[in-house]
Amino acid sequence: MDTAQFNEALAHIRRFETMLVEDGALILKFWLHLSKKEQYKRLKKLEKNPHTRRSVSKRDWRHAKLYDQFVKTAEQAIRQTDSGEAPWLLVEATDWRYRDLTVARTVLESLAKHLSLESAQSEITTQSKPLTPTGTLPSTLTILDTVDLSQCLRAQEYSQALETYQGQLHRLAWAAYEQKCSTIIVFEGWDAGGKGGAIRRMTQAMDARLYRVISTAAPTDEERVHHYLWRFWRHIPRAGRVTIYDRSWYGRVLVERVEGFAKEKEWQRAYLEINDFEEQFAKHGNVVIKFWIHVSQDEQLRRFQEREKIPYKKHKITDEDWRNREKWDVADLLVKKMAQLPEQTKN
Amino acid sequence: MDTAQFNEALAHIRRFETMLVEDGALILKFWLHLSKKEQYKRLKKLEKNPHTRRSVSKRDWRHAKLYDQFVKTAEQAIRQTDSGEAPWLLVEATDWRYRDLTVARTVLESLAKHLSLESAQSEITTQSKPLTPTGTLPSTLTILDTVDLSQCLRAQEYSQALETYQGQLHRLAWAAYEQKCSTIIVFEGWDAGGKGGAIRRMTQAMDARLYRVISTAAPTDEERVHHYLWRFWRHIPRAGRVTIYDRSWYGRVLVERVEGFAKEKEWQRAYLEINDFEEQFAKHGNVVIKFWIHVSQDEQLRRFQEREKIPYKKHKITDEDWRNREKWDVADLLVKKMAQLPEQTKN
Repeated sequence: MDTAQFNEALAHIRRFETMLVEDGALILKFWLHLSKKEQYKRLKKLEKNPHTRRSVSKRDWRHAKLYDQFVKTAEQAIRQTDSGEAPWLLVEATDWRYRDLTVARTVLESLAKHLSLESAQSEITTQSKPLTPTGTLPSTLTILDTVDLSQCLRAQEYSQALETYQGQLHRLAWAAYEQKCSTIIVFEGWDAGGKGGAIRRMTQAMDARLYRVISTAAPTDEERVHHYLWRFWRHIPRAGRVTIYDRSWYGRVLVERVEGFAKEKEWQRAYLEINDFEEQFAKHGNVVIKFWIHVSQDEQLRRFQEREKIPYKKHKITDEDWRNREKWDVADLLVKKMAQLPEQTKN
Repeated sequence: MDTAQFNEALAHIRRFETMLVEDGALILKFWLHLSKKEQYKRLKKLEKNPHTRRSVSKRDWRHAKLYDQFVKTAEQAIRQTDSGEAPWLLVEATDWRYRDLTVARTVLESLAKHLSLESAQSEITTQSKPLTPTGTLPSTLTILDTVDLSQCLRAQEYSQALETYQGQLHRLAWAAYEQKCSTIIVFEGWDAGGKGGAIRRMTQAMDARLYRVISTAAPTDEERVHHYLWRFWRHIPRAGRVTIYDRSWYGRVLVERVEGFAKEKEWQRAYLEINDFEEQFAKHGNVVIKFWIHVSQDEQLRRFQEREKIPYKKHKITDEDWRNREKWDVADLLVKKMAQLPEQTKN
C-alpha cells in the first residue's frame, strides 16, 4: 500500500465515521499505549504462565518486533482520523488502574454529553413533511427527458439478440468468478417498467451458484434499527459473485423522501453517502452497474390496467401502486435530480 | 462413520423433516439418476468445452470413480428417509426434456395439493386459548418442590468461592477452545430470580472472544417468519466457543403456551423437538448446560418492590413483570411439567 492509497483509505474511514455520527451514533476510539519495553515484558510474562500462554501468537511477536514501524504508522492514522465528532483518546496503559479508570470515565462523560445533546436536538427537530409537487426542485431538462421512448425491437431480432447476449453473459459470469471480480447490479425505475422481467432474462443466463437477487420491500424491524445502508451492505456479493438489487439504496432519495420517511438532512447527505458506498465497492476492483427502467406515464397506466385484467398478473398490482402513481410529478423531479448527479469514479 | 452412526444420522434427518412439515413446510426431494456410463460421458463433454470446463472439479472425477459405492449408500439413505410427508422422487435424468418436465409437474401438483390441504385445515383449526389455572395438568410434586430455598452463603465464603471458580472457568473456557468443544448454557427461571447477575459472574471470568450472550426478547418480524427454533439455531456457538442464552427455546412451552401464542399441537410437539435439538448438539461432542433459577413467590414480590424503589434498578421492572406474576400458578404447573421430562442423552 503506497502513501496515496493509505491516505485515501483514511479519508474513507473518516467519511464512514461521519456518516455513522450523523445517523446518531456516538464514536469513541481508544489507543492504549505501551512502551516497547513494557510490551515485551508483558508478552514474556503471558507466555510463561500456562493459563495465558494461548493468548500470545507468533503474529504477536512478529508485530512486537515491528514496534517502531507500527508506532509511526499509527501516529499518521490517528492524526488523520482524529475528528471532533469521532475523537481518538490516547491512554497510557502501563498502569492498569489508571488505564481502566481513564477509559471508564471517558465513556461515562461522553455518554452523558451525547444524551443531553440528543434530547436537546430532538426538541427542535421537526418531522419532515412529505414532498408536494410544488417542491423547491427546479424542473429542468435532464437526461431522462431525452430518452427516446419510441424505440422498439421486432420479435425475431429480439430473440436472436437475447440468445447471443445470454450466452455471453453466461461465460462472462464464470470469467468474473475466476478472477474474483464481484458485481453489483441495481435496478430502479417506474412501477410496471419491467424491472422483474429484465432481471429474469439475466438470471436465466447465469449459473444459479453465481448470483443472488435481493428484492427491496419495506424494511423489517431488524433492518429498521440499523443504518439505512446496512440492509444492502449485508448482501454485498462474495468474491466473484453477482448481487442484483431489485430496488435499492436509491429508495432513500426517492420513496423515503417522497413519503417523508427520511428527514431533509437525512436524504440530503444520502447522495454523498451513496456515492461513497458505490465508489468504495468499485475502487476495490469490482463492478457497479445501475439501470433506470424508464416508461412514460401513459405507458404505465396502460400496463396497470392490463395487470388488473389478466388473472396471473393480478397479484402484481396493488392499491399502493395506484397511490404511488399520484405522486408521479414529485417522483419525476427527484429522479431527474438523481440523474443530474455528477458522474463518480471512472476506472 | 459406521452403520449405527449412519442409521442414527438418517433418523435425525427424518425427525428434522417431520418437524418442518408439522410447521407447515412442503418438502420435496428429487434424486436425479444417471447411469455410470452417462455420467462419465457428460463429465468428459463438460471438460472439453472451454466454457463449461470450470464446473468439473477433481472431486467430481473422484466421486465418479466411486459410482457403485455412491449408489449403494444413496439407496440406503433414500429408503430410510422416504416418508409420506417428505417423499423422495427418483427422476431418470438422461433425457433433459423428460427430467425437466417431470420435476416441474411434480412441484406443481404437490404445491396445488399442499395449498388445498392448508386451506382446508385452517378452517377447522381454532385458536388456542390462554391457559387458566384450572388447566388439565396434575399438580404433582416435582423436583422443583424439593428445592431448599433457605440455602445461603456468607459474604466472605461467597467471594472466596467466586474467585476460585471464576479462575477455573477462565482456564476451562480456553481449554474447551483448544479442543474445539462448544458449549450452550441456558438460563431460565422466574423474573427477578437473578439470571442476569449469574450470567454476569460467568462472563466476568471468560475472555470476551470466547462467549456470546443472547437475550431472548419478543421475536423480531424476521424471526417470526421462521421456525421458532431458527432464532436460536443462528446463535449456536462456533467450534470451541460458548453461547449463553438468557431465556431460550423453553419459551415455547412456557410463555408462548401461557399466553396462547403457540397452538396446542405446536407446544405439544415442542418437547420432542427441543429434546432432539439439544441431543444433536450434545452428540456432536459439545456441552449443554441448563439452569432453572428458582425463587419463591414471596421472594419475587420482595425483589419487585425493591426494584421499584432503587433508582438504578427501576428500569428492570415493568408493568409486564407484574402482569406475568399473576400467572404464577399456571407457569408453575408448566415448569413442573418441564422438569418432569425424561432425562435425555447421557454421554
